[in-house]
Amino acid sequence: MESLPVIVESKLEMRKLSRYWKTKGNIIGFVPTMGYLHEGHLSLVRAARKRCDKLVVSIFVNPTQFGPREDLEKYPRDLDKDLALCARESVDVVFHPGESEMYPGGFQTYVTVQDISKPMCGVSRPTHFRGVATIVAKLFNMVEPHFAVFGEKDFQQLLVIRKMVEDLDMDIEIVPHPIVREPDGLAMSSRNVYLSAQERRQAVCLSQALTAAQDIFSKGERDAETIKAIARKNIQAMPLAKIDYVELRNASDLSMVDKIDCPCVLALAVFFEKARLIDNCILDPGSGRYNK
Amino acid sequence: MESLPVIVESKLEMRKLSRYWKTKGNIIGFVPTMGYLHEGHLSLVRAARKRCDKLVVSIFVNPTQFGPREDLEKYPRDLDKDLALCARESVDVVFHPGESEMYPGGFQTYVTVQDISKPMCGVSRPTHFRGVATIVAKLFNMVEPHFAVFGEKDFQQLLVIRKMVEDLDMDIEIVPHPIVREPDGLAMSSRNVYLSAQERRQAVCLSQALTAAQDIFSKGERDAETIKAIARKNIQAMPLAKIDYVELRNASDLSMVDKIDCPCVLALAVFFEKARLIDNCILDPGSGRYNK
Repeated sequence: MESLPVIVESKLEMRKLSRYWKTKGNIIGFVPTMGYLHEGHLSLVRAARKRCDKLVVSIFVNPTQFGPREDLEKYPRDLDKDLALCARESVDVVFHPGESEMYPGGFQTYVTVQDISKPMCGVSRPTHFRGVATIVAKLFNMVEPHFAVFGEKDFQQLLVIRKMVEDLDMDIEIVPHPIVREPDGLAMSSRNVYLSAQERRQAVCLSQALTAAQDIFSKGERDAETIKAIARKNIQAMPLAKIDYVELRNASDLSMVDKIDCPCVLALAVFFEKARLIDNCILDPGSGRYNK
Repeated sequence: MESLPVIVESKLEMRKLSRYWKTKGNIIGFVPTMGYLHEGHLSLVRAARKRCDKLVVSIFVNPTQFGPREDLEKYPRDLDKDLALCARESVDVVFHPGESEMYPGGFQTYVTVQDISKPMCGVSRPTHFRGVATIVAKLFNMVEPHFAVFGEKDFQQLLVIRKMVEDLDMDIEIVPHPIVREPDGLAMSSRNVYLSAQERRQAVCLSQALTAAQDIFSKGERDAETIKAIARKNIQAMPLAKIDYVELRNASDLSMVDKIDCPCVLALAVFFEKARLIDNCILDPGSGRYNK
């Protein structure tokens, strides 16, 4: 039987504990989450667990990364279940601060990663990555980990965090982790709970679109428009799917590409009524293989 | 005879040294500057020296805090003299990174303190405080000091830095230091070298305006417009002075005030052709005394 992890709600307490661990020579790993943990999160937790002595998972639904008409209020939450799952993964501390601990009155400072935040999800969610960068900067300053693990499902987020760490000279290693998928291919996401049974069946079109694109890429296709058209066609075959974007961009800086002559990301965002799902894969002409 | 301080140009080297000092239990003090040190800077250095074991002074003329038509190129520099002055004050390390060390190609992350950056100097210098907050965040992550000293002459900058540290949960104490003045009252500034002999004589109007305002405040005047009018009149008496702003605001958050019923700052910015000078004083109805 696992014991429950220690729950820390105070940022000062969190930093005190982290510094105490460091005096003992411990390596501290960190997985920031918004809770409602699923296998995707747990795979990050397991990857972190393997590389550290002390593992902190934060659970905080961050209001500054939601837009005014987005799903902050109805974002799914289940702290008891999250704690039980963290216990099973031998998490040392669940850092679970309240909103007033993170954003006291008068809060007005934001971290903005400019170019990387603008395309793709930045178009329909113009303040999203500012909120993500800001909360992650804050969490990093509270937890002071040696490394933090981020999932590749949120590929643009991963790049934003990496760039922030580089540009602001934060001494934290950012460890990427591959996308975890349901048996039919759907990328795991807390937002999958928004899907009706019918939408859930059609949501497989995102990963199918990626597979179709990877197929023609592996056969030598390098034209961005052709590859995007294949992806779009797969999604449009599902009547409940509404494309937000299908983008093919340089995987380092999200600059536009016409021909794939460097590692690129094929990224999708698709609405199913209330739910907005994202997925992506890397198309790397240098690797000889492709990742999904 | 003093030995010259160690000059560190690499950010990784700086952090390594700082962490080594910490393993020895040393308290690390930090004074960030743009160089061309004068008695104002040296008073900050002396204040820091008294409170720490290891003292770092950074010298970096930060391009991101200059506007496109401002004085970046002609900003005064004299590294040899700065090093000699630092030696005399027993500075342990002068951190002097190059521009490509601080802003490598592709740099795109900024820290913005919103409300406090907007009025006063923020009106004529809309990106100035974003540049200041960003470079200070970077320097803090490189030097990792226990405390940093900032002069009250740049009062709005002091508030911006304090708010950034609070909002982003940086564990660094911000120590303010009073304005240092020339014998005739002119606040010390690297930009005073831009003044012609005639402008230099008339530049005393800034501190005279503050003194006049403090006089009526100490006699009981609490109306913001009346006090600002007195200050303006003193500046306008000098034919070469051109007012940028005369502002009287809440000294905590720079919100507007009509009546002085809390600690307020009377802040001035005045052009003398090429030079833009600033000065300020606190008007505190609770203290019984006033500071200049």
